[in-house]
Amino acid sequence: MNRIKVIAYRWVPPPAQGLVRDLRVRWALEEAGLPYEEQLISFGDQSSEGHRKLQPFGQIPVYQEGGLTLFESGAIVLQIAERSDALMPADPGARARVRQWIFSALNTVEPHVQHLVSNDLFRATDEWKNVSRPPVEQMVNKRLSELSTRLNGHAFLEGSFTAADLMMSQVLRLLRHTNLVAEMPTLAAYCLRCETRPAFQKALADQLRAFAANAPANV
Amino acid sequence: MNRIKVIAYRWVPPPAQGLVRDLRVRWALEEAGLPYEEQLISFGDQSSEGHRKLQPFGQIPVYQEGGLTLFESGAIVLQIAERSDALMPADPGARARVRQWIFSALNTVEPHVQHLVSNDLFRATDEWKNVSRPPVEQMVNKRLSELSTRLNGHAFLEGSFTAADLMMSQVLRLLRHTNLVAEMPTLAAYCLRCETRPAFQKALADQLRAFAANAPANV
Repeated sequence: MNRIKVIAYRWVPPPAQGLVRDLRVRWALEEAGLPYEEQLISFGDQSSEGHRKLQPFGQIPVYQEGGLTLFESGAIVLQIAERSDALMPADPGARARVRQWIFSALNTVEPHVQHLVSNDLFRATDEWKNVSRPPVEQMVNKRLSELSTRLNGHAFLEGSFTAADLMMSQVLRLLRHTNLVAEMPTLAAYCLRCETRPAFQKALADQLRAFAANAPANV
Repeated sequence: MNRIKVIAYRWVPPPAQGLVRDLRVRWALEEAGLPYEEQLISFGDQSSEGHRKLQPFGQIPVYQEGGLTLFESGAIVLQIAERSDALMPADPGARARVRQWIFSALNTVEPHVQHLVSNDLFRATDEWKNVSRPPVEQMVNKRLSELSTRLNGHAFLEGSFTAADLMMSQVLRLLRHTNLVAEMPTLAAYCLRCETRPAFQKALADQLRAFAANAPANV
């Protein structure tokens, strides 16, 4: 078996700790039982010319295995899921629906969530808070409500836990600085059901361990 | 072979014509040489209880084939691409990279593009134009510039034309009301290279034909 390498950050500012996208990849690898090594780069080095040869948009994570270099956490998680029955059911229709929910998480839910989060955490101004934020929060709430309706009475999106739940719960996790998920009991229970999995706890601990070990002296 | 059905709109307001997401699915089906029938619903009916049983977020397109119902244009295009050598190369690594670029288009580029577009087209206010828009345009330009650097010297994202180019060019198409793509010659040539394909022209004509046939009297 080829060795798997995941490129992630050595350290990030506290608001981003436990959210950075390599967490999604680490979790998938833990669920699939695939060992990997981490290669840590400095926050800021993602924009370097060297890193951009691997990731043209200057982002992490990057995944390497044998001769394959992949970016986009959605694509990496899908790549891992396609070969693991811990993340994908056997039935072809169910597999297609798992892929569908990964795209829902990343293209229908996350853009609104990320819009709210990045402004709340990194660009908060009075204008944002008083004028721009309310319609964005309303749109996030609309998506959460639609997802909650769909999940009502179901433990997971497609039968048992799959890569769909991994991705969707990680998008919802971005809202941890708000009460939006907590206010919808179905979603709060869903997130708890996903994040209490030992594989998630292991992945989270591994991400946070690197951050703790490499924290700058002045933080 | 099972019959393929695509649920799309009977008519949408002119700014959205030629952009609605069923175009991506129609194009993929044309490239793959798969015949399909369209089922047209009224603009507004996507929020109905009946439609939400197929699409919990109240969106189009929806794809049906045999017993399978799928939503999310990314997932549908991927589903079509996986079985067509017109949209996916044979090499496993290249296939993984095509999936990667589909996710890049939908999760790294489109959220910023869509943020700009939906506000420009549907929620234009002085506040948007003077305060909020400049940093959003700056972020769109950053992504376009990164993509242009990656495409420089390459006709397509992964060898010859694939589903990656279909999706990326359709995300760039959303910017047609601006000069942002035109100002980057590499990207402008790339979009032209993709959209002059007969399969795209056929798909576009089919979407627009329905809109023309069903235009309300007062538009």
